[in-house]
Amino acid sequence: MSKKLIISGTNRPNSNSLKVSEAYYESLVNMGEDCELLNLEDLPHSFVFSDAFGERSEEMETIIQECIIPADHFIFVIAEYNGGFPGVLKAFLDCLPPSILHHKKASLVGLSSGHAGGLRALDQMTNVLHYLKVSVHYAKPKFSGIDAMISQEGELNDLIRSKIDEHAKDLVLF
Amino acid sequence: MSKKLIISGTNRPNSNSLKVSEAYYESLVNMGEDCELLNLEDLPHSFVFSDAFGERSEEMETIIQECIIPADHFIFVIAEYNGGFPGVLKAFLDCLPPSILHHKKASLVGLSSGHAGGLRALDQMTNVLHYLKVSVHYAKPKFSGIDAMISQEGELNDLIRSKIDEHAKDLVLF
Amino acid sequence: MSKKLIISGTNRPNSNSLKVSEAYYESLVNMGEDCELLNLEDLPHSFVFSDAFGERSEEMETIIQECIIPADHFIFVIAEYNGGFPGVLKAFLDCLPPSILHHKKASLVGLSSGHAGGLRALDQMTNVLHYLKVSVHYAKPKFSGIDAMISQEGELNDLIRSKIDEHAKDLVLF
Amino acid sequence: MSKKLIISGTNRPNSNSLKVSEAYYESLVNMGEDCELLNLEDLPHSFVFSDAFGERSEEMETIIQECIIPADHFIFVIAEYNGGFPGVLKAFLDCLPPSILHHKKASLVGLSSGHAGGLRALDQMTNVLHYLKVSVHYAKPKFSGIDAMISQEGELNDLIRSKIDEHAKDLVLF
Repeated sequence: MSKKLIISGTNRPNSNSLKVSEAYYESLVNMGEDCELLNLEDLPHSFVFSDAFGERSEEMETIIQECIIPADHFIFVIAEYNGGFPGVLKAFLDCLPPSILHHKKASLVGLSSGHAGGLRALDQMTNVLHYLKVSVHYAKPKFSGIDAMISQEGELNDLIRSKIDEHAKDLVLF
Repeated sequence: MSKKLIISGTNRPNSNSLKVSEAYYESLVNMGEDCELLNLEDLPHSFVFSDAFGERSEEMETIIQECIIPADHFIFVIAEYNGGFPGVLKAFLDCLPPSILHHKKASLVGLSSGHAGGLRALDQMTNVLHYLKVSVHYAKPKFSGIDAMISQEGELNDLIRSKIDEHAKDLVLF
Repeated sequence: MSKKLIISGTNRPNSNSLKVSEAYYESLVNMGEDCELLNLEDLPHSFVFSDAFGERSEEMETIIQECIIPADHFIFVIAEYNGGFPGVLKAFLDCLPPSILHHKKASLVGLSSGHAGGLRALDQMTNVLHYLKVSVHYAKPKFSGIDAMISQEGELNDLIRSKIDEHAKDLVLF
Repeated sequence: MSKKLIISGTNRPNSNSLKVSEAYYESLVNMGEDCELLNLEDLPHSFVFSDAFGERSEEMETIIQECIIPADHFIFVIAEYNGGFPGVLKAFLDCLPPSILHHKKASLVGLSSGHAGGLRALDQMTNVLHYLKVSVHYAKPKFSGIDAMISQEGELNDLIRSKIDEHAKDLVLF
């Protein structure tokens, strides 16, 4: 069984990306999958300077050794920021030794407040992942109007939950 | 006369992007242009956490007030990292109030060690800037094989210098 | 005053693209603009074979001489087909001598039955036009759910008409 | 064993795409693969008008029944035209019932006279194929400076032949 890592692709506090990531985690664990969740809020705050070039911080080393290297299949939950995917997510990828991603798999999920469900972010991320020799599943659910799908208390509504369950069942076959 | 801001689009120490940015600065100043240079190495080290959401740091406030708001025309010098533009550059854009970029102009310059001169980075950046209501000049010089154009002492060779001078003359007409 | 050419970017009979193109034409002519409309339905039916390579057909020569060369500013009305812009539109561009497009302007309009308003088609078209040295306005209206905006009799509703009028007023300033 | 279809992605007479496609065919057949070659020169000349909408021509019906439907894995050989893939190739895809492509596989090969090896064409094609629910291999060989790799008599040199053989060995494992 492949080991999955869900990556909540922003460091925004209390993000929709994290809530959706948690729902994927729950869905996959309920299916008996071996699964972890990485929240980009937990990156060392200066990682863009401390980890992109030169010596690596201990915190990043732990993330690499315990989260990235063991995983075979990444599920990226990606909100659209400014017509692309979040800079923090690309900055995180830029900190990794590329070879630890090679020949692994990725499934992508797009979120947006507006209509397009993070379409542009997903397209750009696909090109970046292909460059990194990562196989990307063609099915990339797009959750448009995400704000209306999550209550003020942070609860996902039934529609998005059922779509996440359906996608989770599909992606484990990739 | 429009005020220009050259943005060296990486925080990598001693980067080729900075050397190329300095050559643009020199070329534009020699032409009598009003021009500044922003080096992403000078961003506050935790900016991705301190400045993207919530309260803004004093250093970022200074950059916004003194560099971004006064500029009419941005020259982005962009190296290709992992099949896209540097995450730190997108993370920086994600920290800005979008409206301070609206209706301004941008010229893009691509660098790469390999063949494609940062083509993918330039395409993705164009889409992000159009989203941000920034006009992008279609002429985007691509400097492939950049390492061979810069000596160990950091000197740009005559070929790239003449191309930068030519582009500088062109972009002031945009 | 710049001469405008609206290009209805498909050869589908009775297309929404043509109806939207006609509304742009009406709006621009009402503003006193010098404007023509090219419907890709009117291309010679074998143009992909007769005009892309080697000798040019008389019909294509007429289109080039009377529509493309005199125009300064193209308004492309683009429906999304299969996650990109229509092949017939790219095939048409591939038949033109690139230099007759150089240094001209383009405004893009996206249509789609679904949510995303032809976003991907617009992004890809922007990159193609920049390659062809055409300046592209960052404002690219996206008309999602286009079917609901056009009656069975082919009449555009007031919402899309007012958006077209607004865009027409904006694009003449480009 | 999956059935492969190599698609020479242009209708340009005597194209480099066809020569490269033939080399893939030879390489795959030598490996004992079940393989066909579709040359877009053999499309009905008016297919953009006769086959995109409404009734289908007999020639296109034959191509669909004998080439597209039986194939499990497409190898697209793609030259870059005007910063994208050839319009004729997209127009051909636009003529197919999308569902006959769903859940199949694709490998992409880029050609260009210039430096970038058809990078942009490959990126855009990937997005289109993902939209069509086709899995795309991340490894997309890019043959830059293709003219220097093919003699006046149309013979591929040893360098490109060995790269094609290597890619052929790799893609059958996809």
